[in-house]
Amino acid sequence: MIPRVSPLALTMGDPAGIGGELTLKSWHQRRQGGSVFAALDDPARLGRLSEALGLATPIRLVSALSEAPAVFPDALPVLPVPLVEPAVPGQPSPANAQAVIGSIELATKLALAGEAGAVVTNPINKAVLYQAGFSFPGHTEFLAHLTGVDGQEVMMLASPMLRVVPVTVHVSLRDAIARLTPEKIAAAARTTAAALKRDFGLASPRLAVAGLNPHAGEQGALGSEETTLVQPAIDALRAEGIDVSGPWPPDTMFTAAARTRYDAAICLYHDQALIPIKTLDMDHGVNVTLGLPIVRTSPDHGTAFDIAGRGTADPTSLLAALDLAGTLAACRAGAA
Amino acid sequence: MIPRVSPLALTMGDPAGIGGELTLKSWHQRRQGGSVFAALDDPARLGRLSEALGLATPIRLVSALSEAPAVFPDALPVLPVPLVEPAVPGQPSPANAQAVIGSIELATKLALAGEAGAVVTNPINKAVLYQAGFSFPGHTEFLAHLTGVDGQEVMMLASPMLRVVPVTVHVSLRDAIARLTPEKIAAAARTTAAALKRDFGLASPRLAVAGLNPHAGEQGALGSEETTLVQPAIDALRAEGIDVSGPWPPDTMFTAAARTRYDAAICLYHDQALIPIKTLDMDHGVNVTLGLPIVRTSPDHGTAFDIAGRGTADPTSLLAALDLAGTLAACRAGAA
Repeated sequence: MIPRVSPLALTMGDPAGIGGELTLKSWHQRRQGGSVFAALDDPARLGRLSEALGLATPIRLVSALSEAPAVFPDALPVLPVPLVEPAVPGQPSPANAQAVIGSIELATKLALAGEAGAVVTNPINKAVLYQAGFSFPGHTEFLAHLTGVDGQEVMMLASPMLRVVPVTVHVSLRDAIARLTPEKIAAAARTTAAALKRDFGLASPRLAVAGLNPHAGEQGALGSEETTLVQPAIDALRAEGIDVSGPWPPDTMFTAAARTRYDAAICLYHDQALIPIKTLDMDHGVNVTLGLPIVRTSPDHGTAFDIAGRGTADPTSLLAALDLAGTLAACRAGAA
Repeated sequence: MIPRVSPLALTMGDPAGIGGELTLKSWHQRRQGGSVFAALDDPARLGRLSEALGLATPIRLVSALSEAPAVFPDALPVLPVPLVEPAVPGQPSPANAQAVIGSIELATKLALAGEAGAVVTNPINKAVLYQAGFSFPGHTEFLAHLTGVDGQEVMMLASPMLRVVPVTVHVSLRDAIARLTPEKIAAAARTTAAALKRDFGLASPRLAVAGLNPHAGEQGALGSEETTLVQPAIDALRAEGIDVSGPWPPDTMFTAAARTRYDAAICLYHDQALIPIKTLDMDHGVNVTLGLPIVRTSPDHGTAFDIAGRGTADPTSLLAALDLAGTLAACRAGAA
């Protein structure tokens, strides 16, 4: 039996970016099949944008996500989040920051209440939000805060060919090395293993942990972190019954042959994770936040102010984020 | 007019590794076409190996490389470098270390004299050579020493999809960061630009330099090395008329679209260079040493003692190394 999945809540993102265009294009591509979603957005601005881009998108206001499935084949369901001033493509405005944040808050609330199957977020511009008093490093940390699990969030990038989890994220490479601990590596791996079971439907997930140094340190000749940091984490995880291998030489662990041997790669720094996944498949990467009480995905790109409003934005990554959110939500619902 | 290229000198590598098998298989695959090469090896051991593996390889001793072209279509030309004791697959012996080293020395001498078009090296085992008094970190540094350009050697990995040059190589990631200087980045880029012109036949080579930190430091928010180390190198190179761009965010500079914008990527550490090239194409990567007065390539794998003598070794990377050596030697000969 296919479990019933609540509609996905798709946030506005920065209204001066490409998010609105991607939302409209994604509805056109998924209205006949795919997970039902509703835009948590300003209906008037989506209408104007659709007209300006010649996308001919019927828009229907809904007052609850439960109305979205009936609407979806014929019109884009929109749960209204009004803007303060009209959005100008390419020109982000702090005046609309509260609406951007409000859309994320509403989506999270609906997901926590079970009314939304998942939260899918359009890209935001942090600089503009900071001007309006936003104080989180990004979406991910904000969502962890809203769902009461600050610090437990783990970022995964998933594509059809590879899943990667960076243990450290947005810090300099020097700081990433300084901040690594066996506990952080083990915590990220633990959260990943749990999510692969609950949300990805893998009964016995296999993790591969990367080394930090060339050739994974070559028995200490090229660095000691494999011995002092990675191996203790692996030992702890194995003691808990988690199927984990490593530390692997970073340069050979992402080849086609190596990728068959694990379900997710635990990486020690941002680019060790993001270089292989983006090099293999730039367009289909989806950002998934693990460790939250809700399912959350997002496309793996930014606001792209430089091309906003032109009609040339590519919805591939948002479509992948919507599709994966639907899959994960169904898996979690079925497992519940 | 196709310039006349001298035969390639293919070294023995560790006789307990897969080098001999790869040499035999490569001759079978290239005898009817491709660059002529001679093995600088022990003819008796190659004969025994051919028989043991059922490869039916006619072997012909030559006393000079100039005899190789006439021999090559019918037999593998071998310039003898005798072993002290019979090689046992998988069991490297210090007793044969001098022969391993002697093969490299002879190949280099022949290339310097113009009798060999290039040196192509089979994999060695450094631990065994160290026991016999060898004191170089690897092939590359030894060749730089033999050709009188110590410290000027630059490692490139080249595949049909990507060329990468790591500025730092076999040091821990921590040390790699500590050792980076604008001068080292500029020197590697300069050598690369010169080699792309002389050996790869690119009239106006385009280089792309990676940043060190996530998002190339995001204007200093995620690290300062882009400003303090990379940008000064780029400025210096541009002042010399070299076409160089960067610092690029490491995670997006190896996508298919990004790769069309440069001829070689200058990378700041081992895995930043090797993750993308090996992830894209594990089998066709060739190690090219730039900055030498001779052309030198090698396959991008090791001695593989674990599968030596079984007949299962894959010659793809050695074939790519031989083919590329032939191309580079022809280009250099034509440009001379």
